[in-house]
Amino acid sequence: MMNTPLLLRHLFEYAQTYYPKKHIISRTRDGLFRYTYAEFGDRTRRLSAALAQLGVQPGDKVGTFAWNDHRHLEAYFAIPCMGAVLHTINIRLAPDQIAYIVNHAEDKVLLVDAGLLPLLEPIRDQLSSVRAYVILEDTVDISASPLQPAYSYEALLADTNHDFVYPTDLDENAPMGMCYTSATTGNPKGVTYSHRGIYLHSMALGLANTAGLSENDTVLPIVPMFHANAWGLPFAAVWFGADIVLPGPAPTPAILLDLMTEEGVTFAAGVPTVWLGVLKELDAHPRKVPLRMALCGGSSAPPALIRAYEEQHGIPFVHAYGMTETSPLATFSRLKSYQQAQPEDERLAIRATQGLLVPGLEMRLHNGREDVPWDGQQMGELLLRGPWIADGYHNDERTKDTFVYGWLHTGDVATVDSEGFVRLVDRAKDLVKSGGEWISSVDLENALMAHPAVFEAAVVGVPHPKWDERPLAFVVLKEGQTVDKQDLLSFIAGKFAKWWLPDDVIFLQEIPKTSVGKFMKRSLREQYRDYLQVNP
Amino acid sequence: MMNTPLLLRHLFEYAQTYYPKKHIISRTRDGLFRYTYAEFGDRTRRLSAALAQLGVQPGDKVGTFAWNDHRHLEAYFAIPCMGAVLHTINIRLAPDQIAYIVNHAEDKVLLVDAGLLPLLEPIRDQLSSVRAYVILEDTVDISASPLQPAYSYEALLADTNHDFVYPTDLDENAPMGMCYTSATTGNPKGVTYSHRGIYLHSMALGLANTAGLSENDTVLPIVPMFHANAWGLPFAAVWFGADIVLPGPAPTPAILLDLMTEEGVTFAAGVPTVWLGVLKELDAHPRKVPLRMALCGGSSAPPALIRAYEEQHGIPFVHAYGMTETSPLATFSRLKSYQQAQPEDERLAIRATQGLLVPGLEMRLHNGREDVPWDGQQMGELLLRGPWIADGYHNDERTKDTFVYGWLHTGDVATVDSEGFVRLVDRAKDLVKSGGEWISSVDLENALMAHPAVFEAAVVGVPHPKWDERPLAFVVLKEGQTVDKQDLLSFIAGKFAKWWLPDDVIFLQEIPKTSVGKFMKRSLREQYRDYLQVNP
Repeated sequence: MMNTPLLLRHLFEYAQTYYPKKHIISRTRDGLFRYTYAEFGDRTRRLSAALAQLGVQPGDKVGTFAWNDHRHLEAYFAIPCMGAVLHTINIRLAPDQIAYIVNHAEDKVLLVDAGLLPLLEPIRDQLSSVRAYVILEDTVDISASPLQPAYSYEALLADTNHDFVYPTDLDENAPMGMCYTSATTGNPKGVTYSHRGIYLHSMALGLANTAGLSENDTVLPIVPMFHANAWGLPFAAVWFGADIVLPGPAPTPAILLDLMTEEGVTFAAGVPTVWLGVLKELDAHPRKVPLRMALCGGSSAPPALIRAYEEQHGIPFVHAYGMTETSPLATFSRLKSYQQAQPEDERLAIRATQGLLVPGLEMRLHNGREDVPWDGQQMGELLLRGPWIADGYHNDERTKDTFVYGWLHTGDVATVDSEGFVRLVDRAKDLVKSGGEWISSVDLENALMAHPAVFEAAVVGVPHPKWDERPLAFVVLKEGQTVDKQDLLSFIAGKFAKWWLPDDVIFLQEIPKTSVGKFMKRSLREQYRDYLQVNP
Repeated sequence: MMNTPLLLRHLFEYAQTYYPKKHIISRTRDGLFRYTYAEFGDRTRRLSAALAQLGVQPGDKVGTFAWNDHRHLEAYFAIPCMGAVLHTINIRLAPDQIAYIVNHAEDKVLLVDAGLLPLLEPIRDQLSSVRAYVILEDTVDISASPLQPAYSYEALLADTNHDFVYPTDLDENAPMGMCYTSATTGNPKGVTYSHRGIYLHSMALGLANTAGLSENDTVLPIVPMFHANAWGLPFAAVWFGADIVLPGPAPTPAILLDLMTEEGVTFAAGVPTVWLGVLKELDAHPRKVPLRMALCGGSSAPPALIRAYEEQHGIPFVHAYGMTETSPLATFSRLKSYQQAQPEDERLAIRATQGLLVPGLEMRLHNGREDVPWDGQQMGELLLRGPWIADGYHNDERTKDTFVYGWLHTGDVATVDSEGFVRLVDRAKDLVKSGGEWISSVDLENALMAHPAVFEAAVVGVPHPKWDERPLAFVVLKEGQTVDKQDLLSFIAGKFAKWWLPDDVIFLQEIPKTSVGKFMKRSLREQYRDYLQVNP
């Protein structure tokens, strides 16, 4: 067989050749913007040409700091197709973390939404590798920005032409993208994606056994494009010729539902928090939604959510699982054909699991000593292997903790039943998952314990009706010391994104501990599991 | 990303792990045999163990000479998963060709259907590389066969155990299979398939944009497993957990229809001749057939066949195109979403084309001097490139004629319309090259055969002193019919440009044919090479 490499270029050029008439609909601050794949392709090549003029070479990192819109989609292809590396930066990180990852990735150029400039401006002096800022809007006065040198995206595109030719000789194992993921302790960790990995991951999204993305679909990636490649949907949707709807800055449930109904969206993907919000809106203002699949991932969706979508609104609701390190699609929860005959409650219980491993990957369940049987009862850490699983963190010593003997240790503890369905039961570490985002409990604890009045502090995630989980802080004060909640929260506020801050601080006489002196967080979680249900 | 190789082992082990309860139904000479994937997997590993005991090493060729049944399916996985090479031998070749390809491939072991032994026995002395024959039946007296040493497949499996472990360190580019394809002149040419190529080809068959094979399907490969891997269906169907129905020796249309209805077949694939036969049977004995897709390839299906299946029997009928050198899936004819709104005749005309290139491949249309525009009119030879396209013939000097500058020259001449749909026009060698322009012999033949007095017609190009080549028509009339040349030429005149019309019509008693029933145009060209030189 020909040893032709598996490159992002192939996805892009296939879409250009076969689907020039398909549509991309992008919500911007100026309203809905619509264009065809032909125009998208033209602008994508212009962007590559413009980046090349700014000095971007194959292998260089180009960061994006943007919502889900058409310009971000252009960057998704323009950067990797020219051989550079698409580094999507999570706009919700704390300023210090953003500075860390831009420097650590060595981003040479940053593409920034005009509306997000205020987040970068305060840290501009720290961004030592950045040679140029490209502002993703045509109406903003770029000379007014303290981020310099700054260029207007639209002006750059207008100044180049669309005949930029992509290299055909890239190595399929070369990096095409990067994304940083929060760590339990310390700085975020960078995951590097290869052309080969994303190519195969895109194919997996087109399989009838999984998402079955096709030319018949209209795809709405609600999950941000700064999160694990928006689950790879932009790559697969373009390759397979779907119409694409991009929801733009800070979409509300009402905006999302309007887009779904008005644009005929057949496939949308987001975290449980988003689907909870959409459900609430849908309950309040019922309408016919054309979705053939509502895909939910990022954290576990309660069976009640699945049931509400399917029974009350006739929308098939499907669970998937993955992480930044897995590109991210790892499991996908569809019933097997012979399970369709089971009673409804059993079917729902199966579908509320994380599902079956996606074809192309390998999985083990391991308890630290040995492989655990797949009996639906015994727990183990999920280990994953395959061509779209990361093999390490970018220039990071923590690689050795997570990538062991060729397997990714996910840090997620699960059971697997005899049919192969994965059910997550706990996190090996105690990350708090808030609205699909991870919050490091240890970082918060360390910050709290830096206060002179604090003896010790533990942070755990407890259930929250809107955000899935929110952090609660438990604090023991030093003898004779006093401090109030607000002062403590103010003390740590500058160090974290606002949404990282604990919803409440509870003062205790002591924090329960295990025999080896570790915080018994499990016990705190149990005891306070209804705390934010009653005091949201 | 992890650089885990793409191996057949992954398909097999995935199916074993996730689909042990799914079914394989195999028609044998003793009736229908049914078992589960779990049993299939067990026997497949036993077969690998048995072959290893017979001395088969990674890289060795193992030939199969068999119909589509469960033992052949076991061989499809047992041989490549152990690192050996599955060489499927076309049972319909002439004895000398069979001997040639067994020797040329250097098959070490042959697996032979008991019912096909009479085809091999006469050439046994020529099969110099073969060290052992394995007879695929449990009821035959193997000691009676002149093919020696002979082993009973079932006895071998009973003597081994099912814990054979497949190597994990194979190179994904290593050969996993071979198939020989007939050549215009000389011996058949061998195509070698790699693990990587078949892995990716299998993924392509699972895409919702193409066949969308999934766990919900029951797949019936009518196309023989000795023909381009039964179009790759056995690999993809097992990977994705479909139930599989194997039609066994020489199935008739009535047998195929019984299998479809009784086993709930949702997806079946075969050549037009087979589908014509099934249609005739279905017209005579109408019944409800559960097919969601009847896939047709190998040669062009007339629009009337598509229409008959869909309108009279409610069976979606889909065209695909490929060849032994392309694994074979290269194009697949499904309408784009926005074409669904076109009038029925236009939809049918699009669907009667060979369709769109499958994601993962690249295509050009080339006239020998330059790339030809995709306007639906201008003709060119189809060139293909991609990870499941062969890069040469096994130890064969003819490689250089077909594989040029990294592209497979298919020898098929086509037009491509502005939407990218490929319509085959002719074989390159059969095109008439007149004054630098191309004339399709197939189009002229179809037009002539539409005349009520014509039984069959062949058109070939013969040398011409002024125009290089001009078309000559050879016509066989139906018994008792008469028609003169001018009437025939007038009959087709309105359908073509004037310069397309044959220079002469020659009436024959019969048109010479090859062993598989195709017109032997080469012989006509030889015989009439001076016809227009002397009678210009």
